[in-house]
Amino acid sequence: MASSQTIRVNLAERSYDILIGSGTLDVFPQFMADRNSSTHVVIITDSNVDDLYADALGDSLTEQGYEVQMMVVDAGEESKSADAAIDLWETMLAEGADRGSVVAAVGGGVVGDLAGFVAATFARGLAFVQVPTTLLAQVDSSVGGKVGINLSEAKNMVGAFWQPMGVLVDVNVLGTLPAKEFAAGMAEVVKYGVIMDLDFFEYLEQNVDGINARDPEVMQKVVERCCQLKAEVVEADEREESGRRAILNYGHTFAHAFEAATEYGQLLHGEAVSMGMVCESRLAERIGLIDAAATERQVKLLEALSLPITPPELDPEEVYRLMWHDKKVADGKINFVLPTKIGETTLTSDVKSRDVLAVLEG
Amino acid sequence: MASSQTIRVNLAERSYDILIGSGTLDVFPQFMADRNSSTHVVIITDSNVDDLYADALGDSLTEQGYEVQMMVVDAGEESKSADAAIDLWETMLAEGADRGSVVAAVGGGVVGDLAGFVAATFARGLAFVQVPTTLLAQVDSSVGGKVGINLSEAKNMVGAFWQPMGVLVDVNVLGTLPAKEFAAGMAEVVKYGVIMDLDFFEYLEQNVDGINARDPEVMQKVVERCCQLKAEVVEADEREESGRRAILNYGHTFAHAFEAATEYGQLLHGEAVSMGMVCESRLAERIGLIDAAATERQVKLLEALSLPITPPELDPEEVYRLMWHDKKVADGKINFVLPTKIGETTLTSDVKSRDVLAVLEG
Repeated sequence: MASSQTIRVNLAERSYDILIGSGTLDVFPQFMADRNSSTHVVIITDSNVDDLYADALGDSLTEQGYEVQMMVVDAGEESKSADAAIDLWETMLAEGADRGSVVAAVGGGVVGDLAGFVAATFARGLAFVQVPTTLLAQVDSSVGGKVGINLSEAKNMVGAFWQPMGVLVDVNVLGTLPAKEFAAGMAEVVKYGVIMDLDFFEYLEQNVDGINARDPEVMQKVVERCCQLKAEVVEADEREESGRRAILNYGHTFAHAFEAATEYGQLLHGEAVSMGMVCESRLAERIGLIDAAATERQVKLLEALSLPITPPELDPEEVYRLMWHDKKVADGKINFVLPTKIGETTLTSDVKSRDVLAVLEG
Repeated sequence: MASSQTIRVNLAERSYDILIGSGTLDVFPQFMADRNSSTHVVIITDSNVDDLYADALGDSLTEQGYEVQMMVVDAGEESKSADAAIDLWETMLAEGADRGSVVAAVGGGVVGDLAGFVAATFARGLAFVQVPTTLLAQVDSSVGGKVGINLSEAKNMVGAFWQPMGVLVDVNVLGTLPAKEFAAGMAEVVKYGVIMDLDFFEYLEQNVDGINARDPEVMQKVVERCCQLKAEVVEADEREESGRRAILNYGHTFAHAFEAATEYGQLLHGEAVSMGMVCESRLAERIGLIDAAATERQVKLLEALSLPITPPELDPEEVYRLMWHDKKVADGKINFVLPTKIGETTLTSDVKSRDVLAVLEG
């Protein structure tokens, strides 16, 4: 490995390390051996990542004497479904997985969430490891233990909190990411700056060129900072009970509704989050929480990172209806995470439907 | 209520009470209000229990101002499926359940396990309450947090540990149980005696008539003792990690294979457990762990309680193959819980296939 850093996520007996670096995939067998004595590993990946990375990772385990079961789902959000979970459960059972097996999720957010849900529920819970291969998964979904699948009208509506026993991040894999996927991951990166770290937001503004060139040194810093911030939040509120973890949902109430309204095909999650952040910052403006300049600063950075900021044409009433089918709804209220300035947010359910609709109408 | 007793299950922040008595269903709204401030309750029940009890329980909540969503699955083990879970998830979402909702499982083991799994996974986990209406559920499945669904070749292969926030047991409901169902529940009752309490086993031997007459006083004692024993075991080993909780699986390795071989239709779970205990006690005899008299004592009690002790005609090789598709398999070994005398067991994976096959061949 050229360089690497370890970030610890402290969650009592569920604590684990995130190893971040260039070339860390080379240490995968050792990373597994250090964490679990099981010799049966179920690798879950998708049809894009299989040939690129997962197959070779499987071989590296086999060489070390592991019994490896490879399971490949179709690339894309459609695989984050109950049907895909059932297929995986049945295949694992048929091919001899048992409660001593370990699941390794090798892929993006869809693979990590699906594989994590399958790990959380097979035989009432298997140990699992995340090997995120998209920027989005590296900075967000692979850390923190949220796993799950979508229902037809609501993302992530079914799932669990199930912490991995380790996360292995290799920033070199970002080189093979399609441009749209890379940009989509940057939406979540920008989010961390807006919700909790003005300095980091400024670092991003100052390093747009290095980011867009996927400079490994810049990207390692970016991923490290995001994982540190996420670890802090998860440590403070593992199960999203105190409200602290909810700040990670900035942009997501609108984003999930945009994704649902376009049936999870048209928009990448990060693209929807980019649009969602702009909408929610404008909503914050309408109710007097933030000034317009702060929204424009987000718009400028998101655009410099090639992210879309305007949602596709959708019926505002339909989008608003879909917001009610979100996990963030509790006791009949939609809970919004709204920015008060760059680096700070507030939680509020005191938002009028006419303000939400006005933002959607643009 | 004529009389009632509370048994505490001590599991740190997941601790809860089991309220056991005659007529306790009358206090259901208060039992709910004491445990959660939510006003949206999802009652999951089956087509047998709906008219008998669940509908009235729903009405009693509605009268107290709760919003109640009734969901009725077909009675029978077939409902403990991924398809049934998907239906429930989708319907809950469509009818406005959110992360603040509470699930109440009103029914037998199938309803409790399915509803518990749905509660554990909807919006990454809802609070839930168990109202067990079969003897099997009252003495076993409603306590301890094991929830789950079956795959086509393996029972309970998918699930979670998800503790209820309370269990409400009314022994009066045993009066409406079909004879076969009542007897099936007694199989698990006998199991507690065999695995950990000789005195209780003797109490059962001495009270066969009262039990068969479903005398409420006798049955309240029976259910209380079983819940106490189960609570002790669950407190010592909540997630089945130390081996202590595994003792509850006595009879179940054979039983699950019998149920799978008959495709979960022919045998009630308790009937399979009755046969399974006799088989496993005979397996223990073959490898010199217990004397034949102890097996015969179990046979005599099970027969006095109208339980079957001889499995249906099945291919022993097929039954043995199915044992490998069980959660109790770990690292390529079947872990058996075998009795050493009435009131004591041992765990062993050191069992030869020819001994298992010899027991199956009778």
